[in-house]
Amino acid sequence: MRTLIDDPADARLDDIRDLKHSDSRGGLVYAEGPLICGRLVGSRFPLRCVIGFGGRLDSFLADYGAELPEGAPVYEVSRAVLAEVAGYDMHRGLLAVADRPEPHTVADVLGGARTVLILEGVGDHENIGSMFRNAAGMGVDGVLFGAGTADPLYRRSVRVSMGHVLRTPFAHLDGTATTWQRSLDQLREAGWRLVSLTPADNAEHLADALVDDAGQPWEKVALLVGGEGPGLTEHAMRATDIRARIPMAPGTDSLNVATSAAIAFYERQRSLR
Amino acid sequence: MRTLIDDPADARLDDIRDLKHSDSRGGLVYAEGPLICGRLVGSRFPLRCVIGFGGRLDSFLADYGAELPEGAPVYEVSRAVLAEVAGYDMHRGLLAVADRPEPHTVADVLGGARTVLILEGVGDHENIGSMFRNAAGMGVDGVLFGAGTADPLYRRSVRVSMGHVLRTPFAHLDGTATTWQRSLDQLREAGWRLVSLTPADNAEHLADALVDDAGQPWEKVALLVGGEGPGLTEHAMRATDIRARIPMAPGTDSLNVATSAAIAFYERQRSLR
Repeated sequence: MRTLIDDPADARLDDIRDLKHSDSRGGLVYAEGPLICGRLVGSRFPLRCVIGFGGRLDSFLADYGAELPEGAPVYEVSRAVLAEVAGYDMHRGLLAVADRPEPHTVADVLGGARTVLILEGVGDHENIGSMFRNAAGMGVDGVLFGAGTADPLYRRSVRVSMGHVLRTPFAHLDGTATTWQRSLDQLREAGWRLVSLTPADNAEHLADALVDDAGQPWEKVALLVGGEGPGLTEHAMRATDIRARIPMAPGTDSLNVATSAAIAFYERQRSLR
Repeated sequence: MRTLIDDPADARLDDIRDLKHSDSRGGLVYAEGPLICGRLVGSRFPLRCVIGFGGRLDSFLADYGAELPEGAPVYEVSRAVLAEVAGYDMHRGLLAVADRPEPHTVADVLGGARTVLILEGVGDHENIGSMFRNAAGMGVDGVLFGAGTADPLYRRSVRVSMGHVLRTPFAHLDGTATTWQRSLDQLREAGWRLVSLTPADNAEHLADALVDDAGQPWEKVALLVGGEGPGLTEHAMRATDIRARIPMAPGTDSLNVATSAAIAFYERQRSLR
């Protein structure tokens, strides 16, 4: 249901009012630009509205109009109106707003999965977004959150993930900073091989950690990565089966957490060739 | 030679005047923060001065004072003076300024090297910085620049590289956007295996591209990556020995160029185990 709105004060635009200063107002989720709006359509996120310039809406509706929920509000605005409402010049000219769906359970994420990522203490929205992008690209089936991890549905995470955070299932493990690790036992009992990523010299080479003694890939692998700076807590690493490292030259810094995770995704996929 | 400067108009602070709006003024190179300042010391970059708060200078000079060139100017400033001169509050409180040294030649970069990275059309300073950081961390010996590539000595690149752009040798290949590829012939004649990274489905798996038919790693490998978006030009890929891909799930986007390069560095290092 496409409507032209030319009054910046129109209440139907409240979802994006002063968006410049808002990352996650009231838990709303924002898809910005045609690619990410497209990934929102058909996802489990309930669409509230699509807002954009006329031309952008034309092409978006041509591609996805048939998949939109019946009666979904589509608001056409001018560049000036959008800039005034959102508080900045949104040159992409298209965004969609969604509510948060019922969270996935851990069982939802693990069901049918062969490879998952588990995060502890990752506080940077850009790193979280990158990890979802790379997870989707390299065959990781889902993401589980331990303690101390930032909201993956912040605008910046959604954007950097290229919308994959809307498609790749994720769930939070129960517990506090010192108790969530217990839930890893359930994974082990369900046949998951738990692999901690760490720069520590005495860890196994990543390639060796992802295969058994006969060189065969583990059936189900959970890759754990820790926050920028401190990495995984000792408590978390002790709850895993093995510590794996990406070898680093002496005198250099450990890799960015998203880069480390991407290399682990690659190695996991490689082990399954 | 440590001097206290309390006048923001002092000409000895001109190298950092209005730094907020400057990325590479007059070709100067900026090291920001203790880690990167430390990597500048002992590099081939001629130091012009070190500027910082008293406490930051104390610990910097304790670590590196003996390695500073004779008579190198060290300026102590207050937080207020530094903020006024630079145009923003520089919370790291320590920076060093250097001149650009004589550029390395291609022969300098290749001499004794086993793995190099070659860039074409990479315009993003953050990606260039990441690639230097990851190259240093994963045993890549040098970087060569084809056409269309941004300045690796911009402030942002230096910062994201964690100062490794000051340590890892790099040089520019001769030629224009359509002729630089000819210089790849010289590398091939010198025994380098030239490997293009591309998301194309018909490329070889990266792991296969880095070893010969007997599964042995190539003695000397040059990894080529192209700009954000377009990737390597067909012209460049034709001048290489093989096209290599990191397998991607259907319907996903290609990896960020710095992430792709990091995975290639990892695989190269893995092949040499």
